[in-house]
Amino acid sequence: MTLPSHDDVLAAAARIAPLCQVTPVRRSRSLDALAGAELHFKCENLQRVGAFKFRGACNAVFSLSDAEAARGVVTHSSGNHGAALALAARSRGIPAHVVVPAGAVRSKVAAIRAFGATVHECEATLAAREATTARVLAHTGGRLVHPYADPLVIAGAGTAALELLREVPGLDVLVVPVGGGGLVSGTALAAAGSATPVPVVGAEPEGAPDAHESLARGERVLQLTPDTICDGLRALVGPINFQLMRARRVEVRLVSDDEVRAAMRLAWERLKLVVEPSAATVLAAVLRHRERFEGRRVGLVLSGGNVEFP
Amino acid sequence: MTLPSHDDVLAAAARIAPLCQVTPVRRSRSLDALAGAELHFKCENLQRVGAFKFRGACNAVFSLSDAEAARGVVTHSSGNHGAALALAARSRGIPAHVVVPAGAVRSKVAAIRAFGATVHECEATLAAREATTARVLAHTGGRLVHPYADPLVIAGAGTAALELLREVPGLDVLVVPVGGGGLVSGTALAAAGSATPVPVVGAEPEGAPDAHESLARGERVLQLTPDTICDGLRALVGPINFQLMRARRVEVRLVSDDEVRAAMRLAWERLKLVVEPSAATVLAAVLRHRERFEGRRVGLVLSGGNVEFP
Repeated sequence: MTLPSHDDVLAAAARIAPLCQVTPVRRSRSLDALAGAELHFKCENLQRVGAFKFRGACNAVFSLSDAEAARGVVTHSSGNHGAALALAARSRGIPAHVVVPAGAVRSKVAAIRAFGATVHECEATLAAREATTARVLAHTGGRLVHPYADPLVIAGAGTAALELLREVPGLDVLVVPVGGGGLVSGTALAAAGSATPVPVVGAEPEGAPDAHESLARGERVLQLTPDTICDGLRALVGPINFQLMRARRVEVRLVSDDEVRAAMRLAWERLKLVVEPSAATVLAAVLRHRERFEGRRVGLVLSGGNVEFP
Repeated sequence: MTLPSHDDVLAAAARIAPLCQVTPVRRSRSLDALAGAELHFKCENLQRVGAFKFRGACNAVFSLSDAEAARGVVTHSSGNHGAALALAARSRGIPAHVVVPAGAVRSKVAAIRAFGATVHECEATLAAREATTARVLAHTGGRLVHPYADPLVIAGAGTAALELLREVPGLDVLVVPVGGGGLVSGTALAAAGSATPVPVVGAEPEGAPDAHESLARGERVLQLTPDTICDGLRALVGPINFQLMRARRVEVRLVSDDEVRAAMRLAWERLKLVVEPSAATVLAAVLRHRERFEGRRVGLVLSGGNVEFP
């Protein structure tokens, strides 16, 4: 698989511009004081479908030839990517099929259906997911748009950081959540545009620390049972994503679920924003690993806001 | 008491500009579809202190002479106005005293203290509040900054609508919550700047419908026991506020607490915004009184976002 480049992120930005929001960047004096740093929050929770995932899905769907597109797109997703692909497909007028594991967040599954995709439920195991996806692909002849291990999805995800870097010049570091690694690898590509690339830090739950361990070992951890409230970050980092993270020297910092809950509360109180647990990891990371960020201008991608109303 | 004018709103806008945020205006395709109207949400929940109240407080505090200011400011408030006055006073380096009734929202009282004001707790009755306020005024020689029945507070509150009308040309109608009437009367003044003033609709809880009844009767209702989750809208409309509402032909539409809860949920799901119950009344009103708003370009002021984290 060819690794995507900074130029692919630029191409993605042009391709998805008619469909995606340029999301706002928010600040908070009190959070700056708490972190001892200058925090710039890129609000992808305000992206269409409520998550950055819409960027990668659009880039993939609108890169297809008409003949490919006509057979539709297929994916497996616990939620945001599925809804994003559903809306991207509907925007192009083509079918979408989403394989969803049992136990996914209800509102996310409802969104997938609301955007007109066909939902295929399966057991919450890797084997069941792969078998179901293979069956749907064979039946439809559609194109698989993987949630993260896909060059077009990665390049699309990187466009959020591209916007942030343009809107806030002089950022010292970017912080994004790490799950399968689509956002973090796309962000690293976006940040590689200048002679001195902006460093990228991935925030990962302690209960799903495979990216952290994989980087430490120098090879992908392939066995791990995730245990975290961050429902968007339970996947293992993909091969292409891992390769990009290593090439671009991404660091990963861990956060606990308690720290994530506290960060969600802070986003509520200080930013008045609804963020899902996965998105709150970035604020949790900046507060926990203070020595890494203190005194810096930090760009944080709030990756999504799809969480059940209490 | 001299009634404030549109020019006073303009003067307030200039005075408070260095201190207040120009808050963003947000939209949602799905809420537009739900309402059958074009909705523009002015996000005063993202104002400093988390509410539009900071505008009026700043206008009052920074209008004082140095000699007046030195004696400090005094108010009574169940929350947002108290916190706003505390921060405005701190910004000018003068003392603030806030009389708070028992049972006020905890996070709001905590904010008042965090901004350095002296909190004076009293029983949750009008008599206790007035007695305590009078005592603090006598003791300090400070200036009373009433939460709503004050020309400077009204003019300051009107600056939110001024910004909204400038940012979104061609609005057909503005919708704002009605409690004591500071925001609605200030908004009516802001909307009166052109030859054909933009109509203003007040959204009021069914459980505290004194503005609605007062307009119907042609005189202020002075007896009413509020029963609503909208903690910012329990006050009776002030005399000056009522006078301005009548002069500017403000209409008032009622909403139930259930409709307010549903609107809070919609703001959460579709706007990813935390809004307090009082703020959600505007969306509730547009959805309930569909015939009044359908097909229109509607400006809605989300007045605040100070609500306990669940």
